[in-house]
Amino acid sequence: MTRFSFDLHNTDGKARTGVIHTPRGDIRTPAFMPVGTAATVKAMMPESVAATGADILLGNTYHLMLRPTAERVDRMGGLHKFMNWDKPILTDSGGFQVMSLADLRKLTEDGVTFKSHVDGSKHFLSPERSMEIQKLLGSDIVMCFDECPALPADEQTVAESMRLSMRWAQRSRDAFGDRPGHALFGIMQGGVTPHLREESAKALVDIGFEGYAIGGLAVGEGQEAMFGVLEYAPDFLPTDKPRYLMGVGKPDDIVGAVKRGVDMMDCVLPSRSGRTGQAWTHRGQVNIKNARHQDDPRPLDENCTCPCCRNYSRAYLHHVFRAKEMISGMLLTWHNLHYYQEIMAGMRGAIAKGEFAAWEADFHAKRAMGDIEPV
Amino acid sequence: MTRFSFDLHNTDGKARTGVIHTPRGDIRTPAFMPVGTAATVKAMMPESVAATGADILLGNTYHLMLRPTAERVDRMGGLHKFMNWDKPILTDSGGFQVMSLADLRKLTEDGVTFKSHVDGSKHFLSPERSMEIQKLLGSDIVMCFDECPALPADEQTVAESMRLSMRWAQRSRDAFGDRPGHALFGIMQGGVTPHLREESAKALVDIGFEGYAIGGLAVGEGQEAMFGVLEYAPDFLPTDKPRYLMGVGKPDDIVGAVKRGVDMMDCVLPSRSGRTGQAWTHRGQVNIKNARHQDDPRPLDENCTCPCCRNYSRAYLHHVFRAKEMISGMLLTWHNLHYYQEIMAGMRGAIAKGEFAAWEADFHAKRAMGDIEPV
Ligand SMILES: [Zn+2]
Ligand SMILES: [Zn+2]
Repeated sequence: MTRFSFDLHNTDGKARTGVIHTPRGDIRTPAFMPVGTAATVKAMMPESVAATGADILLGNTYHLMLRPTAERVDRMGGLHKFMNWDKPILTDSGGFQVMSLADLRKLTEDGVTFKSHVDGSKHFLSPERSMEIQKLLGSDIVMCFDECPALPADEQTVAESMRLSMRWAQRSRDAFGDRPGHALFGIMQGGVTPHLREESAKALVDIGFEGYAIGGLAVGEGQEAMFGVLEYAPDFLPTDKPRYLMGVGKPDDIVGAVKRGVDMMDCVLPSRSGRTGQAWTHRGQVNIKNARHQDDPRPLDENCTCPCCRNYSRAYLHHVFRAKEMISGMLLTWHNLHYYQEIMAGMRGAIAKGEFAAWEADFHAKRAMGDIEPV
Repeated sequence: MTRFSFDLHNTDGKARTGVIHTPRGDIRTPAFMPVGTAATVKAMMPESVAATGADILLGNTYHLMLRPTAERVDRMGGLHKFMNWDKPILTDSGGFQVMSLADLRKLTEDGVTFKSHVDGSKHFLSPERSMEIQKLLGSDIVMCFDECPALPADEQTVAESMRLSMRWAQRSRDAFGDRPGHALFGIMQGGVTPHLREESAKALVDIGFEGYAIGGLAVGEGQEAMFGVLEYAPDFLPTDKPRYLMGVGKPDDIVGAVKRGVDMMDCVLPSRSGRTGQAWTHRGQVNIKNARHQDDPRPLDENCTCPCCRNYSRAYLHHVFRAKEMISGMLLTWHNLHYYQEIMAGMRGAIAKGEFAAWEADFHAKRAMGDIEPV
């Protein structure tokens, strides 16, 4: 059986490209992971998600443990079979979403007690329970259960929270056990304080993980602050393991993160935007509900090869959005996910050829042009 | 160029099978036409609709004239290009939907003035305007503009309404003009009164159409009353032209209509049901929101080859319906449309072999079994 491993193929500046090998298939890095919160990438058939070029999906432990429950997913043969996706799946630990979505949370050294936002039922999450749930789901890449303090927070609060997360990282590692072909990733915390980030990274590397996430970012701090942390934080991590930046982001966030040494990212943005009439193209953002599109026979993006751009006009996309037709979300989500994967493929190719700077300049130049002129 | 023509291949009792030839492709009859009201079959990509086996779609003149407007569809290259469907399209005349959906209708000999249910704007529909709109849309099969009285109505009202529709049928024929490759269908009215149905059929045949619809049914009269009219009404129509029963229906309505000599049908039911968690299988109706499905690893229908049944359990379908995920409507609609097309294909094959009665007995026997036992 293929074991979980990472081959770093090329670097260009701090940007990296490589391949994560798993028993369920390879993940080309830098990788963007579409989010399949409740066992579906919203508005997409899983074969369509694969057609966009995605090698891996993200599932949300918090949502899945509440509905349909991890035990039920396990009885149905695991998340891959349940949702008809046979490539790798990464699951988050539930920690972040418990703190942002659940009601009546109570945090102790042991874990978090909370009430479901779905039906008010009482639940408990801890490193041990999170590992159990992610195993029941059949996740290929499991995330440590951690705690992410709301920002802004003073350094003392951030330090105490980070150290709790490091104790939980050890408990996660202990509870994960020996699962060949599956990976456990540690999550670095420490806010915007370099020495706390370094302390966190050292604690995680001492425990030892198959990959390392940079946590506590993309929580509203803004791109400048996030890039500020990314200037130094990845350097605290081993070069021979994948680095994952959670919950990022807009296209320019993604490019900036890769430039700073990040290998994996996930975000609901391309799918969520698609359902609200927002599209992302080489020339920036397009709001399809704008009346300027209603007589426009051109596709969203002339150079895009996705089914939305090959087969439909902006006039059609405008019409079905206004008419509240489901195909609006289906087509825009497909396009957005395709565009995100195109960015990733472009970066992978550019890094391999040592041309990342030129690729990045072209990326920003096209966006600076703004959307095409109205007809 | 292929002209519009109908080849009747086989009859078995009153049931018929054949092929309608059009420049955009053949339509195998009996044919079920999925409804693409606003230039989309809700929750489906058009290539998926084709994959279910549909040879032709129905578009709604009333909806399309209001949004995005027929003129805009024409500027965008016609309805086929606009909605990415290159097979035949039949459009209704708008007459029926004006009477059921629009506000403040005023009916005169000339036509109908009404207010849009979308934005309150004022519009006018007449035989001439309906022909113009359906031409702008690029419809392959155009329906005469007719008036359908609300039932129950006394015989005098039904007779006067039918005669108005026959005068409008002549005006529709005159306004349609000479359009090789396109067809105009007349619509028989006359309620549940045989001599009015016969009078209507004779008036239409005198004018001459490429096909004939049986109108004024499937408007709440019930299956028994509908079948009652279908016992005699198709016999008033020429055998060498296709016969279309509008707005029908449930699977057993469709089978009963084909048995009585109908060649074409359309209905929103399979797609609308799909979005509300209702599935149709060989063994009858399944309500996927029922808790009995939540731990059921079996597909909706073991014998169905659609992507929903090949790849997903009832437990998954139950979960995504409860979680209000779009894939719920996408999968159930796909299954329902696939099942409807499977019925049509089954009937075509049975009629060709002279085995319709046996096929029908099997159809009813399987349905009488009811859904599979819970796990
Ligand atoms: Zn595209
Ligand atoms: Zn099926």
